[in-house]
Amino acid sequence: MRIKLTISYDGTDFVGWQRQNLPGANNRSVQGELERQLRLLLHLPVSLQGAGRTDAGVHAMAQAASFEAELGLPPERLAYALNNRLPADVRVLAAEPVAEDFHARFSAHSKEYRYFLVLGQAAGAFDNRYAWFCPYALPQLAQMSQAAALLVGEHDFRRFCGRSAVVNSYVRRLYRAEFGLCTPQAAPAQLRALAEAGLLYCFQVAGNGFIYKMVRLLTGALVKLGRGQLTLPQLAAALAAGGPLPAENEPWPQPLAPAAPAKGLYLWRIDY
Amino acid sequence: MRIKLTISYDGTDFVGWQRQNLPGANNRSVQGELERQLRLLLHLPVSLQGAGRTDAGVHAMAQAASFEAELGLPPERLAYALNNRLPADVRVLAAEPVAEDFHARFSAHSKEYRYFLVLGQAAGAFDNRYAWFCPYALPQLAQMSQAAALLVGEHDFRRFCGRSAVVNSYVRRLYRAEFGLCTPQAAPAQLRALAEAGLLYCFQVAGNGFIYKMVRLLTGALVKLGRGQLTLPQLAAALAAGGPLPAENEPWPQPLAPAAPAKGLYLWRIDY
Repeated sequence: MRIKLTISYDGTDFVGWQRQNLPGANNRSVQGELERQLRLLLHLPVSLQGAGRTDAGVHAMAQAASFEAELGLPPERLAYALNNRLPADVRVLAAEPVAEDFHARFSAHSKEYRYFLVLGQAAGAFDNRYAWFCPYALPQLAQMSQAAALLVGEHDFRRFCGRSAVVNSYVRRLYRAEFGLCTPQAAPAQLRALAEAGLLYCFQVAGNGFIYKMVRLLTGALVKLGRGQLTLPQLAAALAAGGPLPAENEPWPQPLAPAAPAKGLYLWRIDY
Repeated sequence: MRIKLTISYDGTDFVGWQRQNLPGANNRSVQGELERQLRLLLHLPVSLQGAGRTDAGVHAMAQAASFEAELGLPPERLAYALNNRLPADVRVLAAEPVAEDFHARFSAHSKEYRYFLVLGQAAGAFDNRYAWFCPYALPQLAQMSQAAALLVGEHDFRRFCGRSAVVNSYVRRLYRAEFGLCTPQAAPAQLRALAEAGLLYCFQVAGNGFIYKMVRLLTGALVKLGRGQLTLPQLAAALAAGGPLPAENEPWPQPLAPAAPAKGLYLWRIDY
């Protein structure tokens, strides 16, 4: 039987989604925790296919993962049983049977990420894990929404991906890209009060795929633009980059701006 | 010069307020972190007097601590300098000069604690650190408010203190004790959305002093009452306990109910 899990996690204390096969204490991955508990519960080894790899510190409201196993219990009991065993910072929101050809990564039509940043206030003791408290003045704040609109459509994102990205193509299609003040309804619960106070901003982006660090590098470029250190034509030019993939001995494309910190990023939803 | 610090912290990853002088990795106290950074900043050893000792996992919105030192920088710069050095889960909200006879613990007129519990919903990946998601049905919920009202005034709290409490007297005076649905304004920011959804309850208590684990044991007694396992007369009888302190070879007073988990408790404010 093929099963789809929907998973939420606080990424702060994880090395990321992906299982690490290195020895060492700092080795706690979401995939690893889930696979361990599935193995203990089902008495057989389980290999999870995640919809997207999130980095250390990146959160998920609704990550998806699929696996093949003979359950031995009704699928609707699986979420409950797993949550009794899993650490408190990862929760299984749903477990459901899916078609045999379902694959959490390849069957996804669209993934949505949201990046939350706070302007005009330093982090408190309770919220620093869950958003980026941006320390910069952003005199060109209004231009950041225009910049986000430029991202919609199909582009070559080679100027917006991490160095170790291994891809066949830098081309991805974004269905939606918006930047602006975040409404309380669009914020995760732990940031609702910041949204109500008018201090929370959100970069909301949905697309058919995302390259390693792409959303954080796009956010970094928007912030650089907001600071007045980058112009809309420069951003448009970076999006118009193209050409073949660089060969191994060629220099990697240089990101247009530094990546925004992981803690502001949430894998928000995945549509199948 | 005598300085008063006002401090907020997420207690989850601390062994508590008090400096631990034991070797070992799990040794991270709020007092210890503050004293270390004060020593590095001021180039002299600093001993902090805290207003109240909070246990592992207990949070603080406004803990107070005082110390004596020649600062070498304006007091109003101290909070900024400390926050640059401190870990993100402890923040100095204010640093101000106070009279030479000020003592964070002994000068306090009143301390307020708030205990937050969530009814009717399991914890998510992001909120489990910040409240107790109470797993019990509470058919006598309405009686819990009446029970809280019984606590106001001077009582012998020997049935509501932890075993290792070392005290000269079990008598404390509570100025205020209320239990009920929590308004969004009365909740910490990270629980605001739960309050808006009508799922958050608060036990709010202010008094001239609190014995080790007292607020958590009072909360535990309220919950036991809400579950229908304790009556108002039984609670009143426990509050009327009295007599001399037990001698060392005598049995300790038995708590009326188990303590509620640390993660729901916040040291909320201290009045001087």
